[in-house]
Amino acid sequence: MKLALDSSQNSGSIALWDSGRVVYSAYFSISVTHSETLMPQVDAAMRVCGRSPSDLKAVLLTIGPGSFTGLRIGLATAKGIAFGLQIPLQTFSTLQLAALERYHCGRNILVVMDARMKEVYAALYDEQLRELRPPQVCVPEDVCGWGLEDCYLTGSCASLVRPLLEQRNISVIPVPETPLQAAGLFTLAEMFPQPEIYDFQSLAELEPEYLRESTAQVRKRQT
Amino acid sequence: MKLALDSSQNSGSIALWDSGRVVYSAYFSISVTHSETLMPQVDAAMRVCGRSPSDLKAVLLTIGPGSFTGLRIGLATAKGIAFGLQIPLQTFSTLQLAALERYHCGRNILVVMDARMKEVYAALYDEQLRELRPPQVCVPEDVCGWGLEDCYLTGSCASLVRPLLEQRNISVIPVPETPLQAAGLFTLAEMFPQPEIYDFQSLAELEPEYLRESTAQVRKRQT
Repeated sequence: MKLALDSSQNSGSIALWDSGRVVYSAYFSISVTHSETLMPQVDAAMRVCGRSPSDLKAVLLTIGPGSFTGLRIGLATAKGIAFGLQIPLQTFSTLQLAALERYHCGRNILVVMDARMKEVYAALYDEQLRELRPPQVCVPEDVCGWGLEDCYLTGSCASLVRPLLEQRNISVIPVPETPLQAAGLFTLAEMFPQPEIYDFQSLAELEPEYLRESTAQVRKRQT
Repeated sequence: MKLALDSSQNSGSIALWDSGRVVYSAYFSISVTHSETLMPQVDAAMRVCGRSPSDLKAVLLTIGPGSFTGLRIGLATAKGIAFGLQIPLQTFSTLQLAALERYHCGRNILVVMDARMKEVYAALYDEQLRELRPPQVCVPEDVCGWGLEDCYLTGSCASLVRPLLEQRNISVIPVPETPLQAAGLFTLAEMFPQPEIYDFQSLAELEPEYLRESTAQVRKRQT
């Protein structure tokens, strides 16, 4: 049995995988912090499935970009479980998980998510979800030069970016907004296999992919 | 706030919608009956969201085809909630919900689900999810004459039907298997609006779309 976690956005999601399929998945977008909901949801999932944490063989996590606090809570939780059970932790880009929605649909996929401060987290994938433009933080106008004609457009900032593209006569195909589901990480793990071993050193050194400094860090550096 | 339910398969799923977005979604594929899990899951969802049943303004449900027992439990539950709160019940085809996975992807979508007894539930949709072939029960070979070249293929019987198509040199694009999520019903409800009124008569008369008689019904008729 494997556990997948996503707390990279305001929403959160967990999922369990057993014998080659998703057996449980939960998504919640509610105004309480991940630190209050994530572990109780994992606990509830285990109880619904009649299983215990010792059944877990791996943890999968969205490593970023996304909410700084959300990413820290997710990584701390995942590290704790992986360390406690001595099982591997496998991480995936939040943007690649969002792109999975249009996997194998014959076109490139642009993902744009809110990075606040008038910027977006953006990445471009081909239909096999291979990176054409790796995840980066930029102003929305910057993505317009990426050669996006006829690509799919998804992510929380899709409705912000689409008019900018249309002003430049770049036509894209919007994807209906769907919740970001941790269950998709199991599919990504099959498409892009990662080591199945527990490695304390790499676990300890793993950090969220913030893509930029937090406002707090910038302030601290400037003082 | 709206509630969506799916218990048409061995798996089950519920979701809550509030202020224009999915706020909670849960999927469970576990070896206990829907009659034990469906209402506790609805109750858990309400508690996680800090809401009560009286906040519900509509119930959305997959009406079939699917597991006969599952459909009955789903419809009984949904009718009970709709009747108790005097709110509308809106129903959608299980096959159309599965097709939603490839909405607006430029090709037709064939959905094939297990109907047991060596048959499948099958339907063909265009990229706007309009019915080209309405849901029906048939042997897998029957769908091969539907003009499927280059369409997407999804559903629990996709791996059974694909070789049959390939034997006839019909190439299709398989869709990665993903859990059937009730949350998609909110998207279908926006695409295909239904009356937002409570109507006791039509609620009382609503039946599952079994598409065929159950073995028990056939035996009874034959005796």
